[in-house]
Amino acid sequence: MSTFGHYFKVTTAGESHGKSVSCIIENCPPNLALTEADIQPQLNRRRPGQSSITTPRNEKDRVTIHSGTEDGLTLGTPILLTVPNEDQRPKDYGNQTIDLYPRPSHADWTYLEKYGIKASSGGGRSSARETIARVAAGAVAEKWLREAYGVEIVAFVTSVGTIKLFGDADAMSADPGFLSLAQSLTRADVDKFLPVRCPHEETSRRMEDRIAELKEQEDSTGGTVTCVIRNAPAGLGEPAFDKLQATLGHAMMSIPAVKGFEIGSGFLGSEMNGSKHNDPFTPAPEQLVSAAESKLGIPRSRLVTKTNHSGGIQGGISNGMPIFFRVAFKPPATIGQDQTTALYDASGEGVLAAKGRHDPCVVPRAVPIVEAMAALAIADAVMAQHARQVSIQMRKSS
Amino acid sequence: MSTFGHYFKVTTAGESHGKSVSCIIENCPPNLALTEADIQPQLNRRRPGQSSITTPRNEKDRVTIHSGTEDGLTLGTPILLTVPNEDQRPKDYGNQTIDLYPRPSHADWTYLEKYGIKASSGGGRSSARETIARVAAGAVAEKWLREAYGVEIVAFVTSVGTIKLFGDADAMSADPGFLSLAQSLTRADVDKFLPVRCPHEETSRRMEDRIAELKEQEDSTGGTVTCVIRNAPAGLGEPAFDKLQATLGHAMMSIPAVKGFEIGSGFLGSEMNGSKHNDPFTPAPEQLVSAAESKLGIPRSRLVTKTNHSGGIQGGISNGMPIFFRVAFKPPATIGQDQTTALYDASGEGVLAAKGRHDPCVVPRAVPIVEAMAALAIADAVMAQHARQVSIQMRKSS
Amino acid sequence: MSTFGHYFKVTTAGESHGKSVSCIIENCPPNLALTEADIQPQLNRRRPGQSSITTPRNEKDRVTIHSGTEDGLTLGTPILLTVPNEDQRPKDYGNQTIDLYPRPSHADWTYLEKYGIKASSGGGRSSARETIARVAAGAVAEKWLREAYGVEIVAFVTSVGTIKLFGDADAMSADPGFLSLAQSLTRADVDKFLPVRCPHEETSRRMEDRIAELKEQEDSTGGTVTCVIRNAPAGLGEPAFDKLQATLGHAMMSIPAVKGFEIGSGFLGSEMNGSKHNDPFTPAPEQLVSAAESKLGIPRSRLVTKTNHSGGIQGGISNGMPIFFRVAFKPPATIGQDQTTALYDASGEGVLAAKGRHDPCVVPRAVPIVEAMAALAIADAVMAQHARQVSIQMRKSS
Amino acid sequence: MSTFGHYFKVTTAGESHGKSVSCIIENCPPNLALTEADIQPQLNRRRPGQSSITTPRNEKDRVTIHSGTEDGLTLGTPILLTVPNEDQRPKDYGNQTIDLYPRPSHADWTYLEKYGIKASSGGGRSSARETIARVAAGAVAEKWLREAYGVEIVAFVTSVGTIKLFGDADAMSADPGFLSLAQSLTRADVDKFLPVRCPHEETSRRMEDRIAELKEQEDSTGGTVTCVIRNAPAGLGEPAFDKLQATLGHAMMSIPAVKGFEIGSGFLGSEMNGSKHNDPFTPAPEQLVSAAESKLGIPRSRLVTKTNHSGGIQGGISNGMPIFFRVAFKPPATIGQDQTTALYDASGEGVLAAKGRHDPCVVPRAVPIVEAMAALAIADAVMAQHARQVSIQMRKSS
Repeated sequence: MSTFGHYFKVTTAGESHGKSVSCIIENCPPNLALTEADIQPQLNRRRPGQSSITTPRNEKDRVTIHSGTEDGLTLGTPILLTVPNEDQRPKDYGNQTIDLYPRPSHADWTYLEKYGIKASSGGGRSSARETIARVAAGAVAEKWLREAYGVEIVAFVTSVGTIKLFGDADAMSADPGFLSLAQSLTRADVDKFLPVRCPHEETSRRMEDRIAELKEQEDSTGGTVTCVIRNAPAGLGEPAFDKLQATLGHAMMSIPAVKGFEIGSGFLGSEMNGSKHNDPFTPAPEQLVSAAESKLGIPRSRLVTKTNHSGGIQGGISNGMPIFFRVAFKPPATIGQDQTTALYDASGEGVLAAKGRHDPCVVPRAVPIVEAMAALAIADAVMAQHARQVSIQMRKSS
Repeated sequence: MSTFGHYFKVTTAGESHGKSVSCIIENCPPNLALTEADIQPQLNRRRPGQSSITTPRNEKDRVTIHSGTEDGLTLGTPILLTVPNEDQRPKDYGNQTIDLYPRPSHADWTYLEKYGIKASSGGGRSSARETIARVAAGAVAEKWLREAYGVEIVAFVTSVGTIKLFGDADAMSADPGFLSLAQSLTRADVDKFLPVRCPHEETSRRMEDRIAELKEQEDSTGGTVTCVIRNAPAGLGEPAFDKLQATLGHAMMSIPAVKGFEIGSGFLGSEMNGSKHNDPFTPAPEQLVSAAESKLGIPRSRLVTKTNHSGGIQGGISNGMPIFFRVAFKPPATIGQDQTTALYDASGEGVLAAKGRHDPCVVPRAVPIVEAMAALAIADAVMAQHARQVSIQMRKSS
Repeated sequence: MSTFGHYFKVTTAGESHGKSVSCIIENCPPNLALTEADIQPQLNRRRPGQSSITTPRNEKDRVTIHSGTEDGLTLGTPILLTVPNEDQRPKDYGNQTIDLYPRPSHADWTYLEKYGIKASSGGGRSSARETIARVAAGAVAEKWLREAYGVEIVAFVTSVGTIKLFGDADAMSADPGFLSLAQSLTRADVDKFLPVRCPHEETSRRMEDRIAELKEQEDSTGGTVTCVIRNAPAGLGEPAFDKLQATLGHAMMSIPAVKGFEIGSGFLGSEMNGSKHNDPFTPAPEQLVSAAESKLGIPRSRLVTKTNHSGGIQGGISNGMPIFFRVAFKPPATIGQDQTTALYDASGEGVLAAKGRHDPCVVPRAVPIVEAMAALAIADAVMAQHARQVSIQMRKSS
Repeated sequence: MSTFGHYFKVTTAGESHGKSVSCIIENCPPNLALTEADIQPQLNRRRPGQSSITTPRNEKDRVTIHSGTEDGLTLGTPILLTVPNEDQRPKDYGNQTIDLYPRPSHADWTYLEKYGIKASSGGGRSSARETIARVAAGAVAEKWLREAYGVEIVAFVTSVGTIKLFGDADAMSADPGFLSLAQSLTRADVDKFLPVRCPHEETSRRMEDRIAELKEQEDSTGGTVTCVIRNAPAGLGEPAFDKLQATLGHAMMSIPAVKGFEIGSGFLGSEMNGSKHNDPFTPAPEQLVSAAESKLGIPRSRLVTKTNHSGGIQGGISNGMPIFFRVAFKPPATIGQDQTTALYDASGEGVLAAKGRHDPCVVPRAVPIVEAMAALAIADAVMAQHARQVSIQMRKSS
């Protein structure tokens, strides 16, 4: 499906060679202030080496709101967002071997297997441009979450190849370095470390060097992006199957090139003892609760946890603590080196020479994509809980 | 939602204290031979220390087919499966503090936050018994996949705490030990290593000792389960959002206690270079293709890959190679030690004394649950592709 | 699909020859008082010639709640309801011709065409017993709607064959007889007119006679059921495709034997002029609004309409006025007369002798089924609006 | 929801005052020849007084395909279609009273109740322009159905106010006039009777006169549209809830202004006796079956029925016979006469003077909308059956 979410619901369309990459957002709450200016910054951040502050004169990937708003307010009706493709013709990859060989580890072959037709650009919707629709839709979800609940979603690069911001010794949830960063890091902070978006001066520089080196070598590498969600209300997640970590995991694993997802203590958490891993509860500071009560549709939890190995989710339901997770991206499949591989017609092997430009590492640009998918998963969970919350409140007050 | 899948669709119900744990399967293909005997073995494997061969006289967790079959054949109509709860009364945890304190890292608190009502058993559907419905439904999916495509799904334990079957040096997809095991390991092989289901004599023994030790210490630990899917047809997965790794990830992350998921090269794949990570294609052996053609609704891919860092999925679509992934489980939250935590009413802290029996490590029993969820995700993807496949074939033959 | 609804969601299973007819209800609001006693009365009314007051000693079609409640309160988790089939073996229809000939206008043939397998009972899920699951689920939806909003749903028989309660001169919405009945008719009122449930002494008697006559003649006839929904809140219905009349229409058209659905002014409304058909607004009586405000999750509309040709729905959204619609049922296909028809193997024609008992007119028993499906459609729409309502209220109070 | 269908799935967006009315089609089969020229004719027919043959120089409502095709072939990926709104500013209705009074029987008030915001155009998505997206999507569905199965969908006007093409004496399925028309009527035939699209010379003229008269009187009237679907394969429809008549009913009842739907014998069928209403089977002519077998993904039924009171659907599943149904439209709410009604603020009543142009009868333009929604419902049902059909065929051939 090209649809994500059941309540706050997004349907996307578009590949690299058509007229646009687009999405329709259904059920966005009405009366939300929304113009293109709320969406464009994240689209800019998705472009190579850009921060949200940059306002390039000849802006590319410009979003247009077609429907669902009037006078800068959402109507509650479907919102169509389109971003035109500049060059609608299939890309010229500079050689003909690309027509003869499906690119290794690319989507060329599987798209042909699945759909029985070969688009000139190869992997159809596996194109990186597809993620534009995610980022645009996510910006809308995020705007609503920020206004309604003060939700903050911040992602950043935690590794490029073997160069890592944090070590492998501790789970994220037990790493003081991560925990301190997670508390207050903003997107503006992250963008100070452009082009790699790893919020640590020296590590950032080493990553930059490594990427330059790989470009030279016509090779590529993977990396990880870590994301923290602050101020999400408690009660989000729809067990049994739509536990919050499951829909977040679905969201992240659907991003092109993602090979792994872990939440809270993650893989290293599996090595811990329960006595250390358990997060004891303690009463939430009074002012926190009362400040929230007056505003929120979903009341604030009266308990907090002292540690957060759970990553803000227990039994598949958010507990009001920060939610954080890590996403692993594989190295880009398109590289400048020659590759020996099979012909489309399965008649034998030969050499695919992919001479085009390529991006040796996608994680810096993946940051706003991860944020967008997180926003979509959270917004959907909030609306699902809203539907139930009204009943709970009606019953209380009756 | 308590529904998984869009085509091969399962809806589950039941918690530990009601009359049964149950599921309804919609759209199971008609004319499939199916009786309780096809489902019971995996339910048996889910019980502590059991293999599918064991046939205990007073069998527990006995499944009944209520509808959707006649004379041992599926009708294509919804199949209701129920497994009665033996003791329907809320569990006696041997002390009263459990009524005063939400258990740390358990679902007690978040269920109360979400639903505004406290079930006597605490975390409602987060109970381990909920997974019975998954295993029962998965056994049906699996029967169909096996008959239709010869699909084999085998999961096994790869770590208990810090004791690991494979090292951390290489990605699964680059580890010769894993690759050799993955090729032909069967469930019968895995069950030779009961009670821990780690298919290596010495490692298995060490894990067993470690679990015994933790029991002694009234503590718990986590672990990982690895799963391989052989003979899944190419063309499965519905991009952009329902890429096959995304629905598999969703399926796994929805299992209680899961904190991480990685596919193919996974997290370590993010440290590799593209030139090494890319999987070159080569023509599939002729007899493989022709043998398959005659049987399958979805024709077999004419290409295979020489390496499989992709884990059988490229661009979100299966390529016909083995699919494999790893799932991380946190240590069980219920431990025998006293724990200082907050009172339900947020009036302060105190000591929760959970004296009941507890399972120090869930991964051995998680093996059939992982297999079941894998079967459900694959069966759903197969039917989605079927819907399209007919059109492709009609067009070819016209 | 055997699933109805997106928010208040019901999945059903079961045909006449299995162990039970059952349903799972997802997302029923928590903390609702619910026991089998809330569900059984409508199941009783569905049985031939029964009112909800009757409490037969050896009650048939007894419902059991398997999950989702504790101590008589809903938990917010899935509710499994089962009703056992008394005689699980395929029915003996008293002759063998039924194995040779698909029954005319029955589901025998189309089920075989669709699923490629012939259940011994013929039309599988087209069995009238399937509707048990609808009635059980509807009773839960209805309980909630009644408690939360005071919603009243009452259906009754308006025609049997050519014998009609109201004439064909006016649309329902313009018929003083109907309008007066609709205002206050209760189920108890309707059941005073058992066995036919047509709330008019003389018409009722004529219908009864007609049905007796048809029984004698081994023939059958159709009829219509009209349903009114009072006190549904305004704002229900999810345009563009899930307008409230569309989901109500879907619900009704999915009931076995239904051939037509009309809402408000219906088919005769198409003959009216706009100047007469339009429903002018007028301010709602003050006390109505204020009484409601204090209680409801969805505030009461401050306007009412003077006429109600719209049937309580404008632009696909409820306006707070009574909703009413009519449903047409065809004559039952199973009759006692010999019928010339084709053999299953398409080798020729012959005579099908269906000698079994048969029900010459289903509309009296259809009354609780229509009420149930109406309750499910409305409950789903209420929860959809709840999800949005919280946002609207949050925004207002901020 | 603004989504229709589960397999062949359409999501629409757009109201009268935004940049475009648009839709995304998911899961359209790949390799289908498709350009704007396949879609434009039905959009033209939707405009007042146009036939599909007319090619106006300054064409309005021009559709653009943004994605999902290449070189005139579908790729199997989402197809975005947009139709720009010419005048994006809110309509000027020529007076200010429209800002003070919600229009009677219009969506102005209910949209405000539901969404808590008043679009300047009033009823938001209830605008007639919303149907553009339906017609565009339907044209794609139809193209596929025609190529794959030779499906023909033809709708026509059967009444305008009290002027009727057929009498009220017989059910459609028993009316020789209808049955003869239904057999071979084409869209070209229907368009010979522009502007009203009632395929009978004299009746058509009377309708035209009546509409002119109502225009004069600043009044409006309703009417009915009847639709026939020929060559739909047997086996379509997903009981229990998604019976084919239920999804068709849902589709039709979701069209703006529709108040009623009946299929096959419909409401009058409820007055018939079973012995007459039952449709006896007879073997299908041999050449029909064999001609079809070679081509179709879903084999042709080997039986036909002698009569067709079922309207091509038995037990909720198509039997291969023609499907036909009738749809009732209410008179348009917007009329030129003054109307006394309430103020938005519920402070009292006054006079709404709606002086704008208005269309006194929508049924002629509704013809392509009914056809479009029929195509969407059938295409969705075909894909659902495809998913199952592969399994049935695999089993047969194994």
